[in-house]
Amino acid sequence: MYRSHHCGALTAAHIGTGVQLAGWVAKTRDKGFMLWIDLRDRYGITQLVLDEERSDSKLLETAKRIGRETVIQVSGTVLEREAKNPNMPTGDIEILVTSIDVLSPAQTPPFTIEDNTDGGEDLRMKYRYLDIRRTPVQQSLLFRSKVALLVRNFLAEHAFVEVETPYLIKSTPEGARDFVVPSRMNEGQFYALPQSPQTFKQLLMVGGMDKYFQIVKCFRDEDLRADRQPEFTQIDCELSFVHQNDIMACFESLLAFLLEEIHGVTPKPFPVISYEDAIKTYGNDKPDIRFGMTFTELNDLAQNKGFQVFDAQELVVGIAVPDAASWSRKQIDAWVNWVKRPQVGANGLVWVKCNEDGSYKSSVDKFFDADGLSKWAEACDAKAGDLILVMAGNANQTRTQLSALRMALAEELGLRKPDEFAPLWVVDFPLFEKDEETGALHAMHHPFTAPKPEHLKKLESDPTAVIAQAYDLVLNGNEIGGGSIRIHDRITQEKMLSLLGFSEEEAKAQFGFLMDAFRYGAPPHGGIALGFDRLVAILDGKETIRDYIAFPKNNSGRDVMIDAPAPLDTDQLDELALIVKPKPE
Amino acid sequence: MYRSHHCGALTAAHIGTGVQLAGWVAKTRDKGFMLWIDLRDRYGITQLVLDEERSDSKLLETAKRIGRETVIQVSGTVLEREAKNPNMPTGDIEILVTSIDVLSPAQTPPFTIEDNTDGGEDLRMKYRYLDIRRTPVQQSLLFRSKVALLVRNFLAEHAFVEVETPYLIKSTPEGARDFVVPSRMNEGQFYALPQSPQTFKQLLMVGGMDKYFQIVKCFRDEDLRADRQPEFTQIDCELSFVHQNDIMACFESLLAFLLEEIHGVTPKPFPVISYEDAIKTYGNDKPDIRFGMTFTELNDLAQNKGFQVFDAQELVVGIAVPDAASWSRKQIDAWVNWVKRPQVGANGLVWVKCNEDGSYKSSVDKFFDADGLSKWAEACDAKAGDLILVMAGNANQTRTQLSALRMALAEELGLRKPDEFAPLWVVDFPLFEKDEETGALHAMHHPFTAPKPEHLKKLESDPTAVIAQAYDLVLNGNEIGGGSIRIHDRITQEKMLSLLGFSEEEAKAQFGFLMDAFRYGAPPHGGIALGFDRLVAILDGKETIRDYIAFPKNNSGRDVMIDAPAPLDTDQLDELALIVKPKPE
Repeated sequence: MYRSHHCGALTAAHIGTGVQLAGWVAKTRDKGFMLWIDLRDRYGITQLVLDEERSDSKLLETAKRIGRETVIQVSGTVLEREAKNPNMPTGDIEILVTSIDVLSPAQTPPFTIEDNTDGGEDLRMKYRYLDIRRTPVQQSLLFRSKVALLVRNFLAEHAFVEVETPYLIKSTPEGARDFVVPSRMNEGQFYALPQSPQTFKQLLMVGGMDKYFQIVKCFRDEDLRADRQPEFTQIDCELSFVHQNDIMACFESLLAFLLEEIHGVTPKPFPVISYEDAIKTYGNDKPDIRFGMTFTELNDLAQNKGFQVFDAQELVVGIAVPDAASWSRKQIDAWVNWVKRPQVGANGLVWVKCNEDGSYKSSVDKFFDADGLSKWAEACDAKAGDLILVMAGNANQTRTQLSALRMALAEELGLRKPDEFAPLWVVDFPLFEKDEETGALHAMHHPFTAPKPEHLKKLESDPTAVIAQAYDLVLNGNEIGGGSIRIHDRITQEKMLSLLGFSEEEAKAQFGFLMDAFRYGAPPHGGIALGFDRLVAILDGKETIRDYIAFPKNNSGRDVMIDAPAPLDTDQLDELALIVKPKPE
Repeated sequence: MYRSHHCGALTAAHIGTGVQLAGWVAKTRDKGFMLWIDLRDRYGITQLVLDEERSDSKLLETAKRIGRETVIQVSGTVLEREAKNPNMPTGDIEILVTSIDVLSPAQTPPFTIEDNTDGGEDLRMKYRYLDIRRTPVQQSLLFRSKVALLVRNFLAEHAFVEVETPYLIKSTPEGARDFVVPSRMNEGQFYALPQSPQTFKQLLMVGGMDKYFQIVKCFRDEDLRADRQPEFTQIDCELSFVHQNDIMACFESLLAFLLEEIHGVTPKPFPVISYEDAIKTYGNDKPDIRFGMTFTELNDLAQNKGFQVFDAQELVVGIAVPDAASWSRKQIDAWVNWVKRPQVGANGLVWVKCNEDGSYKSSVDKFFDADGLSKWAEACDAKAGDLILVMAGNANQTRTQLSALRMALAEELGLRKPDEFAPLWVVDFPLFEKDEETGALHAMHHPFTAPKPEHLKKLESDPTAVIAQAYDLVLNGNEIGGGSIRIHDRITQEKMLSLLGFSEEEAKAQFGFLMDAFRYGAPPHGGIALGFDRLVAILDGKETIRDYIAFPKNNSGRDVMIDAPAPLDTDQLDELALIVKPKPE
């Protein structure tokens, strides 16, 4: 043993005890005759002390030369501190050091190991092992571990079995791009890394496992947007003999349990909103409902009143921004310009101040009188003091633009409170999306999602009108999970694949094993997958996931710390019977 | 909800209750006027009953036509059974069925869904989803899930943090072969799948995580021996500020906890035996110590006594087989022939019967008298009634051969009891193995293993004499885990890699990030990895791991169910800038 206690353990109860500690030198304060060292490990910081009076003079000299981040082992006695620090668990004590061993010297780190470091993102990623020493990153990883264990124990208590599904599977060209793995033993053939264990978990249901879960890595070879990783972690679940409501109830109780355990919050029953209503009310299918500013369609009140900008548009839609009637013209213009930026792409913004005195002031006073505007206010549920903002245009685009504005306003107004949690379910998704250009149908969720039984007959006649038995779990404006009841009969599955453009041969080659399995007695089943990286970040009141991943990759899919990917030895390529195409000159 | 109860839930307490069940038809017994159906799900079997007297005649007729493995939903009333079955939890009751819905029809499965199936290995693998319905496989997967949760909770209670390390890492050509993953975004470059998270867990220690664990998939592209999988699961652990004994104590307590929880067995403190002693006493480094038959070296007693077969040999070594003096000549000859088989490859076997009456009868009576043989018996600790078996030859070979014999005898004699658990530690492994042909040094554990501090100075002068701070955890003749104290300083790590034949450039390219990390204050650290697939099998009293893996691959690395690996689309290859070499004509 290198230590009798860790650096977060010692309190006033230990005063007088001889102890041995080990850790990193976080900081030293040298007063000449007296030296304090903050010794740090995962569990906390303990203050060490040496001085001319009580310490061996050689030891004091040695100690003064020890630099930050050096790993040392010390022996000493626990003393009561004169100046206590009530903000740290070990703040009542300090250790009078009698011996120091340097276990590992340290160069000056490339950035400071402090909560607010001077290191930029790139440097921190290259030296991730130093970044992890910083409390915010360390605490994020500890939090992730804690949440994983809570999830596992909850699901185990609810009769779920964790089953490991394989990582070396078969490539299915539909959907996102697979990462592939050449097989040496089967020359010219490739495995794929799973984008999700979807088909395997369905086979586990056919196999009678009844309730499956797994916290599992998934892989997607996509061009990376910010905050996307080529490998990510999913809480993957599947249940047999269930309807949509059973699954929603089960995972509502899981999320409620987590909120209770982590934040002591008991959420109300989660609201359930249809996809259509979510789009109409919030402009997107993962609404943040911690705040209002819901959409009000104003076509009836605002069109054909002489303001031609509105008249020709498909949609006129507004929101009431609370307590913003007092904004200056400059403030409002800033938002008008904000929506005109190419990233949002709106033509402009009509505003109406609902003044405290009951009067109205708007950018369209020429066209609408107080009576007209009061009807807008009533429709938008705007109170005196609120500011109504109105956009018009093509319905889809306008909703997306107004949604972006709503979220940005909420951010600005401090309405997206990190310690408030507002989960909801979004349901009744269309089964298909239609490619505007090609007219091809794509599965909105995935090709295994079951339509509502009463829509089965529309599958071929009116596919885009078919509603799926699919549901998303949304938390604070993020989709944290999505799932569906699955097709469990071969005929429907074949029809579905055919509608998605699979030839009979393609369907058989890629999903034949699943459709074969349905021949031998498949239970009705469905499931859900929760994005674990994001769930953990949001539960911790954060939006970016990178600190919750120990060794993340950058936007080019590179691990800059180990410098991967990298070229292979020719021998390795030969064994795999592969040639890398030379780059065109 | 498709069911009010699952198929293992109903007991006499429910008699008279109306219930709804769903599951698979396991079996029907048709007595004409009466029909019984065993309805099965993961939780058990419930007997359904219909008869001419109490059931609707149409329903009875329908029910009679329902084949095995059909998925049905039934409603009915719980009745007391006339002929109770005390062997099943639901044996007191049966359900008088009032309605049946077929949820999914079933073709006759390709093999019987019974504990002892008529399906061969290949068929079972192709239809693994049906194989999983069989109780032995299902129970194995449930058991695995249970053990994983026990391990996680134990480690979490001992301050271990589960940290997910990346799957897309960098290929390191030493050691076993990597599976590689071409990077589309970084053309011509490849990731590798981890053979273990070794370097990452060490970096987590440098990062101050202090105690890490992960239950994690690892990948090795090896030619597969029976019972080896290209992907396998490891309980991977690393600790900081520890000596070898601290790690051994920690994981001894983990295994003891598992044995206690699973079998109610409290093992004695685990024996610790040196690698050298294990080889000398058991002929291998993962001894099964559930039984005796330890090796006794008989060179002094058996050489130069006129029996020339022994005289020239490096080693003469014997074991005492308990209560085998009564074996017939034919029985003994069978074992003599057994060791001569090419798989074992011995020249023969000398035997000595220690008769109950104190006399001796041996195959070398011509050369050794009773007095001589009694000394053998004393040395071998053979009692009256035992049979001594002796082999001679080159030390390494002979030990391996006698070890094979010892294990086969134990199997035959029923001494390898599946419900007995005999863990031990093997320690003091050499740091290096020397390639007999090339003279090259290989790391016996891996290149990051620390030598004993007192052997550091021999590292260059006498490397094969250097003993490592390495330890294996052995259970019932299987190595279930292995670990070591790691090197935590750059100089020693560089020296180690240089001794292993890495050039300075190779060392830097492959492990530069690790050696760089050691510049910034690395704590002394070490760890262990337990083979989870095997651990689970052995804890369940089994030796083969395949039933504990939901979707295993065959010996060619193929998943015959999904038919992977498979050729890729040309488009996919193009995107990866890869060409598959055409096969030579």
